[in-house]
Amino acid sequence: MYTLYYCPGTASMIVHLTLLEIGAEHELKLVDVEKNQQKDPAYLRLNPNGVVPTLVFDDRPYLESAALLMLLSERHPQAGLVPAAGSVERDQWRQWIMYLSHSLQSAFRAWFYPAELGYEEHTAVTRQALQNRIAAIWDKLDQHLEQNGPYLLGDTFSGADLYLTMLMRWSRNMPRPATGWPALNRLAQLIIVRPSWQKMVAIEGIDVWPKVSSN
Amino acid sequence: MYTLYYCPGTASMIVHLTLLEIGAEHELKLVDVEKNQQKDPAYLRLNPNGVVPTLVFDDRPYLESAALLMLLSERHPQAGLVPAAGSVERDQWRQWIMYLSHSLQSAFRAWFYPAELGYEEHTAVTRQALQNRIAAIWDKLDQHLEQNGPYLLGDTFSGADLYLTMLMRWSRNMPRPATGWPALNRLAQLIIVRPSWQKMVAIEGIDVWPKVSSN
Repeated sequence: MYTLYYCPGTASMIVHLTLLEIGAEHELKLVDVEKNQQKDPAYLRLNPNGVVPTLVFDDRPYLESAALLMLLSERHPQAGLVPAAGSVERDQWRQWIMYLSHSLQSAFRAWFYPAELGYEEHTAVTRQALQNRIAAIWDKLDQHLEQNGPYLLGDTFSGADLYLTMLMRWSRNMPRPATGWPALNRLAQLIIVRPSWQKMVAIEGIDVWPKVSSN
Repeated sequence: MYTLYYCPGTASMIVHLTLLEIGAEHELKLVDVEKNQQKDPAYLRLNPNGVVPTLVFDDRPYLESAALLMLLSERHPQAGLVPAAGSVERDQWRQWIMYLSHSLQSAFRAWFYPAELGYEEHTAVTRQALQNRIAAIWDKLDQHLEQNGPYLLGDTFSGADLYLTMLMRWSRNMPRPATGWPALNRLAQLIIVRPSWQKMVAIEGIDVWPKVSSN
């Protein structure tokens, strides 16, 4: 039995999706980041970083969204979210998750939290630089998917695709949303029809995204 | 047989240290980032991100420093860099590596590469904000080690400690180097006497760090 401390639309989404894919029994506890509840003393005892998500099981809290994707995928191999241990694909899977975390999720963190760079709002220069940096990552990912897709690991869906799709969603209000890249958009269309994504949207109560392609 | 594309003092250090800890046969190939060799077309074919490190084995390139630490640790469990699969410690180990990558290494990337934020040099405001952000991470890590150390996983050394120590070294020219935090400094003192660290320093030809404590 898992307990997930989450907030709709945030990084906890990847853990929520993973639990739904696995079909693992779980309880959701809302941490409203609009009300800054992630800084409540009781929550900080679980997660001293003061961020969502936190996953609790066997009376222990576990942190870090990408680590939780890996943890749950490896604990429940029958869900097919992770390639077999020792395979080349397993190493590529781990590498994609680290890349998405270190390069893309970090760039979004900079984009969404100008305070971490000392400003209430980004300067126009930094705003443009971060847009360019994120666009350059979409370029690389789109090229990879174009040549090797439709999924990050080729013909086989994995948890890394859920993670990438969550991060694509974060770009929806940027000047150049990720769905403007054709192979990225194809991946998103494959993920959003999965029962896990549709359940997640209903439970978290977030806007439907992206618009379904008409072609 | 592994081939590591590296540059002294950079993120490739964690992979170099891991290879030395394992005692794995390997060849080093210098990619001089001062000369921008990480953007050479031949290197970009191995690593489209244009960064060090790249690890090549079985004719395939593998990327992402933290992913390579995990990959090598898991391929060579006898080296004792990773707790047993399925253990609580294994989940904590993965979590620490993700935290160090996502929070700390990313903050250093912002610190060292103002161009990624659109500036040749950081504004004084951003400089201070990044110093504060990194210091807040040292606070958290120091508190954890004080209560649960001397290593990240307690009494047992792991590859996560090598990674943290490499990142601590990156702070050596900052106004507040990580070694100013007592429990972090104790960890550094434990790591730098390991044969792997000493060999790495000699092979990479980098400055000895930190000064050995006299007490």
